Amino acid sequence: MPFDQVYEKYFPFWKQLSDEDKYLCQNSSVVCFEKEQPVHDNLECSGVFIVKKGKLRLYMLSEDGKEITLYRLSPGEICMLSASCVLQSITFDVYVSAEVRSECYMISGPAFSAVSERVLQVKNYALEAATQRFSDVMWIMQQIVFMSMDKRLAIFLLDEIAENEGDMVVMTHEQIARHLGTAREVVTRMLRHFASDGLVEVKRKGIKILDKNKLRDIAY
Amino acid sequence: MPFDQVYEKYFPFWKQLSDEDKYLCQNSSVVCFEKEQPVHDNLECSGVFIVKKGKLRLYMLSEDGKEITLYRLSPGEICMLSASCVLQSITFDVYVSAEVRSECYMISGPAFSAVSERVLQVKNYALEAATQRFSDVMWIMQQIVFMSMDKRLAIFLLDEIAENEGDMVVMTHEQIARHLGTAREVVTRMLRHFASDGLVEVKRKGIKILDKNKLRDIAY
Repeated sequence: MPFDQVYEKYFPFWKQLSDEDKYLCQNSSVVCFEKEQPVHDNLECSGVFIVKKGKLRLYMLSEDGKEITLYRLSPGEICMLSASCVLQSITFDVYVSAEVRSECYMISGPAFSAVSERVLQVKNYALEAATQRFSDVMWIMQQIVFMSMDKRLAIFLLDEIAENEGDMVVMTHEQIARHLGTAREVVTRMLRHFASDGLVEVKRKGIKILDKNKLRDIAY
Repeated sequence: MPFDQVYEKYFPFWKQLSDEDKYLCQNSSVVCFEKEQPVHDNLECSGVFIVKKGKLRLYMLSEDGKEITLYRLSPGEICMLSASCVLQSITFDVYVSAEVRSECYMISGPAFSAVSERVLQVKNYALEAATQRFSDVMWIMQQIVFMSMDKRLAIFLLDEIAENEGDMVVMTHEQIARHLGTAREVVTRMLRHFASDGLVEVKRKGIKILDKNKLRDIAY
């Protein structure tokens, strides 16, 4: 699909742009990322991404390499926090990587920024996209601060099967731990506990969910 | 000072508003809050506050009453998250209370919201104010997830004396614990540890900072 049609579909402001501002199409490309490949790190203004295929993961990273997943982006969703030059008020570091093999439309950060400085609707759109994610992040923070790890793990497993359908969470304990910002040992211990209660079955290729309702009782 | 002059000082968009939109002045009041009095709880659209005197504290609250301080607002600063009807994309619960006796200019939420729907600059301003706080909140989250409690306590004490000048943090262990979202016992233990290293002195009316540099070594 030509960029013009893609942007008309995803950006509510697109039709209001002048032909001149639609030069964003000339500053666009389709980029592919292999599984686990970094899409964006904190320092650059990588640009605005629209997920075409696959899934992106946004996360925080500590100095000693500890991660915590903030949220994931599916096809049709837009990554605005990777365009730090568009959003000067965002001063924190965020990292983005491809969770699976992914394809994205990418608009150059400086080009998008220039249009957003000229056209208030575009600026508005970018800010609105950022504040929406603010709510997602607060939900994660609430889990971290106020919830016990068993509750967080139960929510995580339920979210995973809701997103990917089926009853398998195809991840290693290490990967789950990374999402939750904890140690692998903690996840392993908790899963063993869930398994002995008949909630899950720990298999070689991942976690099989046996009892969604009991898991929900823990989660909510 | 008449509202018109106050808003001209604080709102970059004020001069661009039509006389009709400046009816915000008629939807304004000066409100006083006693120490610890609630200013806003999650459910209502309380309005936009500009701190005139005193200090407001924004915090999250768990179901079982645990708190964590997100940030504080000093005179001249604006509280936008208390106007949930202006920012539809903000869907999380936030609580605001007066940390000391405070006076605020308050603009009715629905009135501000109506103007922000008509005038893009106003919407922009509100969104920009919210995303700035997004960065503050991420910094708190980073501390919670990635830092040990001694580091967090050291940062907290240094921030307190930087904000209030002098070398005394006039707070109980209970209050500090509430800011950090932890138990009083944890704070007491940590302070005892800091005291034995000669960093602080625990006094009846608060914590006296004895060695800022050593505290900074822990913090950063």
